[in-house]
Amino acid sequence: MSLLETITSPARLKAMEPSRLPALAEEIRTFLVTEVSKTGGHLGPNLGVVELTIALHRVFDSPRDVIVFDTGHQSYVHKLLTGRQDFSKLKKQGGLSGYPSRAESDHDVVENSHASTSLSWADGIAKGRRLKGERDRHTVAVIGDGALTGGMAWEAINNIAVDKDLPLVIVVNDNERSYAPTIGGLAEHLATLRTTRSYERVLDWGKQTLSRTPVVGGAMFETLHGVKKGIKDIVAPQGMFEDLGLKYVGPVDGHDIETLERTLAKAREFGGPVIVHVLTQKGRGYQPAIDDAADQFHSVGKINPETGLPFEVGGRIWTDEFNAEMVAIGDERPDVVAITAAMLIPVGLDGFAAAHPDRVFDVGIAEQHAVTMASGLAYAGLHPVVAVYATFLNRAFDQLLMDCALHRAGVTFVLDRAGLTGSDGASHNGMWDMSLTSMVPGLRLAAPRDGEQVRAQLREAVEVDDGPTVLRFPKGDVADPLLAVRRHGDVDVLFENEGEAVDLLVVGVGAFAGLATDAGEKIAAHGRTVRVVDPRWVLPVSDDVVDLARAASAVAVVEDNLVSGGVGAAVTLALSQAGVQVPVHTYGIPKRFLDHMSRGQLLEQLGLTADQLVTDLESRL
Amino acid sequence: MSLLETITSPARLKAMEPSRLPALAEEIRTFLVTEVSKTGGHLGPNLGVVELTIALHRVFDSPRDVIVFDTGHQSYVHKLLTGRQDFSKLKKQGGLSGYPSRAESDHDVVENSHASTSLSWADGIAKGRRLKGERDRHTVAVIGDGALTGGMAWEAINNIAVDKDLPLVIVVNDNERSYAPTIGGLAEHLATLRTTRSYERVLDWGKQTLSRTPVVGGAMFETLHGVKKGIKDIVAPQGMFEDLGLKYVGPVDGHDIETLERTLAKAREFGGPVIVHVLTQKGRGYQPAIDDAADQFHSVGKINPETGLPFEVGGRIWTDEFNAEMVAIGDERPDVVAITAAMLIPVGLDGFAAAHPDRVFDVGIAEQHAVTMASGLAYAGLHPVVAVYATFLNRAFDQLLMDCALHRAGVTFVLDRAGLTGSDGASHNGMWDMSLTSMVPGLRLAAPRDGEQVRAQLREAVEVDDGPTVLRFPKGDVADPLLAVRRHGDVDVLFENEGEAVDLLVVGVGAFAGLATDAGEKIAAHGRTVRVVDPRWVLPVSDDVVDLARAASAVAVVEDNLVSGGVGAAVTLALSQAGVQVPVHTYGIPKRFLDHMSRGQLLEQLGLTADQLVTDLESRL
Repeated sequence: MSLLETITSPARLKAMEPSRLPALAEEIRTFLVTEVSKTGGHLGPNLGVVELTIALHRVFDSPRDVIVFDTGHQSYVHKLLTGRQDFSKLKKQGGLSGYPSRAESDHDVVENSHASTSLSWADGIAKGRRLKGERDRHTVAVIGDGALTGGMAWEAINNIAVDKDLPLVIVVNDNERSYAPTIGGLAEHLATLRTTRSYERVLDWGKQTLSRTPVVGGAMFETLHGVKKGIKDIVAPQGMFEDLGLKYVGPVDGHDIETLERTLAKAREFGGPVIVHVLTQKGRGYQPAIDDAADQFHSVGKINPETGLPFEVGGRIWTDEFNAEMVAIGDERPDVVAITAAMLIPVGLDGFAAAHPDRVFDVGIAEQHAVTMASGLAYAGLHPVVAVYATFLNRAFDQLLMDCALHRAGVTFVLDRAGLTGSDGASHNGMWDMSLTSMVPGLRLAAPRDGEQVRAQLREAVEVDDGPTVLRFPKGDVADPLLAVRRHGDVDVLFENEGEAVDLLVVGVGAFAGLATDAGEKIAAHGRTVRVVDPRWVLPVSDDVVDLARAASAVAVVEDNLVSGGVGAAVTLALSQAGVQVPVHTYGIPKRFLDHMSRGQLLEQLGLTADQLVTDLESRL
Repeated sequence: MSLLETITSPARLKAMEPSRLPALAEEIRTFLVTEVSKTGGHLGPNLGVVELTIALHRVFDSPRDVIVFDTGHQSYVHKLLTGRQDFSKLKKQGGLSGYPSRAESDHDVVENSHASTSLSWADGIAKGRRLKGERDRHTVAVIGDGALTGGMAWEAINNIAVDKDLPLVIVVNDNERSYAPTIGGLAEHLATLRTTRSYERVLDWGKQTLSRTPVVGGAMFETLHGVKKGIKDIVAPQGMFEDLGLKYVGPVDGHDIETLERTLAKAREFGGPVIVHVLTQKGRGYQPAIDDAADQFHSVGKINPETGLPFEVGGRIWTDEFNAEMVAIGDERPDVVAITAAMLIPVGLDGFAAAHPDRVFDVGIAEQHAVTMASGLAYAGLHPVVAVYATFLNRAFDQLLMDCALHRAGVTFVLDRAGLTGSDGASHNGMWDMSLTSMVPGLRLAAPRDGEQVRAQLREAVEVDDGPTVLRFPKGDVADPLLAVRRHGDVDVLFENEGEAVDLLVVGVGAFAGLATDAGEKIAAHGRTVRVVDPRWVLPVSDDVVDLARAASAVAVVEDNLVSGGVGAAVTLALSQAGVQVPVHTYGIPKRFLDHMSRGQLLEQLGLTADQLVTDLESRL
């Protein structure tokens, strides 16, 4: 039996001899490399926190104490130590989630995989428990240096720092990078703290040295301790965390379990909010990930910076189409600039960055800033392209509305991973963007149906300089090219059969154009007159779509987005306002949070296959 | 002719003798007190920035240089100095906006009145101009200490600080308060900077003293200057801004024009990003506002902390109903806690705060943190009530969705100023909240139609502990009580006349229930059978509403919210999914940004009066 197998709960971990812990850590690393390489998942971030997670569970008493993991993809070790060691179906239907999950375990608290939330969660939990008289239940937040660049984290620190009585331990897991090297003033400040000889170590040195002088040593140490503030100002910069009023401890070697335990135990007993600055190495123990981290960006295509695993060698993905066209546009248009929120490679801006390094801005995990900064760049006469995962646009709705749209800023948003992503779970599905953008005055949204349309519509979007434009496309392999049989105004007609009147107009949105065409062809084969169209620019609803609907007896809208407030709702409203009385049937994602499983399984479960659409539509016609 | 009248442009201001500037400042103060007291508006914030704005326009060259005002309600002096001195219709139709407005002047850049955006705007503009080779065009952001607590500001500072070459001046207008005293670690740090003898002053003192020693003075000063870093560490704490890499200058007396000009000129020439810390007094020159600021909170009801003007003595407003009921609920339920984002008094939590000071959290201008912290409090077993203006919920959509709703946290959101507010302009209208919340799984939204319903539905909301609940109500005087003629399930029937079949079901949402009833009664008087209902809980759409719609030949939904994705859209989708084929006509706010005018004028312009509804509906029936 391996050491790992004996750890069926944190209690077993606490009982383990300290001398065996390094061996346990090695077992966990081997387990992760072996298992996660098979299933996919976040390898790099978890390899970095093996010792830290062991120390956390030995010092704190989960679930009585709460450990909140920011951006929960660093919780695999936590899962292993809290009784979940079957990783065979990680991120698959019926298997473990790739993030913490309350349904899986009482040890899991925060399921949200969006970054920078942990400090706010911890602040609420710690203050709530204090109010309930449960001061002895500790709260720990584990946050990466990358996530600290998010504005929410600042808002939380600003509140936590002044509550001197709040038992809250903030572990800053500093690996100098999230998906890319962490940028900004904070990163430089952390670097200063890293390289400065730590005050705690000077104090330890003093204590040890003086203790060797038997009689006077104690008193001298107390004196030394008494003037620690003065020493500190000379030995180390005070540090912004202490400027804000937070106790700061560190930096601590994040791979030395004994030191981690001692430091965390001290932090636990401190009684007020304290930051423990822990230095870790992302991908530790897995040479390809380390090499890649060191050689970042020049080795594009070798290791996925998001997961730490080799890039899957597969077909061309949607992102590739955007990546390539941005390079071409950048060559032609010196006014086009690009913005990413700490995800240069995953969103496909690495090509542009290599070709035009002075025109790309990585702002950190800071979507709000990205959108408003883009509005400023547009004011200065440039055309910014902001590339983010669709789900992260939710972070910057107010800025999209009040900074970009209100000021008619010519900014193009490129939303990758739009629609169902599946295996990453509820908070990664990009199912909200078309409902959200549907609320924004003056915003035009394109949903390209294939690679050629990604390229063409990106070019159309960057021509617009009097308001925001949006392109959205899904994760994964780009759809097969789908040729239009003809154009009707701005609308591509993808299929139509002969007939007196049109029984059904099917509007296929973006990547669902293929699905819409398949369904339409089958219904036509059953003897009805059907027309399938791709509006290309789906928001706002064009007059062409209204015209086509007027000529039909029924309309179906098929979209890879929430049905609430999505394109179907927009078409319905447009027809109602135009006085066109024709029933509109909308097919898309229902308003609920979706369990992790593959995209194909989700589509099947939600009735978003051609056969299911045909059955449902024929029952309604 | 007054001095102020001679200032028809910043050029005239620049040409003015420095000795006359104090008199000009006095004239401006008198003008503001006199004019703004007549029209309403933000008096306090503008009285605080008279000298600062004069100095800015003398040192910088607007509009060639850009001055961005954060939370633009502090731009009245800027308006006066850039050719806009007719304040007679401030915030009224055809008059000046209460915020900067590009339509008014080339000197205005950012119209958004939401806080904490200015640094991102300035970062974008400065970087854009540098890319375009326009390095000699300066960018200035003027931001209050309160707005610095917003996460966006942090995201921007993190980016600006590392760009050593970026010509960008950040003026921190530190008056120790926004609408309430600024809270948090940052505020305490600013206080430290304020009270520490400033490094610049020590250096000045050294220069002056040594210069009196003719021969060696210069060399000694250079030596002193050479070790300034060392001196600084002893004289003053290094300061978090410098920790982050930003040049910090200050603190500077914000009412001393000469010092301000000298400091701003130095900052302009610095060539990189620099923070100028300016100390001002909110309401300066207007004793009631100063007294109130000093005596904050005990003098509730005397001065509106948002505007600096006396509270209008009028009828009971919607906020009062919430305020009173929260106190009562707080007495009964020790688990109910309250959260505000720097607006304790404006959102009506002052009563609760006075009664239960340990259970209210003012988190600063930090809506994201407020929502996620509330989710943490709920996890700890409390029931938080988050009270914000409706338009500011846009700042925390992701947190509402991914922290609160995904985790089924029992949190109640109370959205004040929902619907059209009118005179505050485009970015204060609370017209987005029902579309936004309509996207959130598990969320239940109530739109109380009168004061009694505010109280009753608040009580219903705080009983829900398995997901978010929302109450939304408008600005201003609470609607007259509207009694139901009967209940149908959870729906209040407000009016119905006799008849075989129901020609029209009118769904009146919240404060529009009265409008819906008026319109319904008129249509009934014209010979049709009409039923008017208030669903009370409008999201998600209840089965009762679907049942009532099934019994009608047509449905009209009347809501004080965007028609795109609002309650009308939700009703339409619910009917479609239930297979109820009845036309739904939705009346609400069109998808565009609205000019400032009174709420009544806006309603008239948008066709949201009983007579206009009757005309339109009868044409459609």
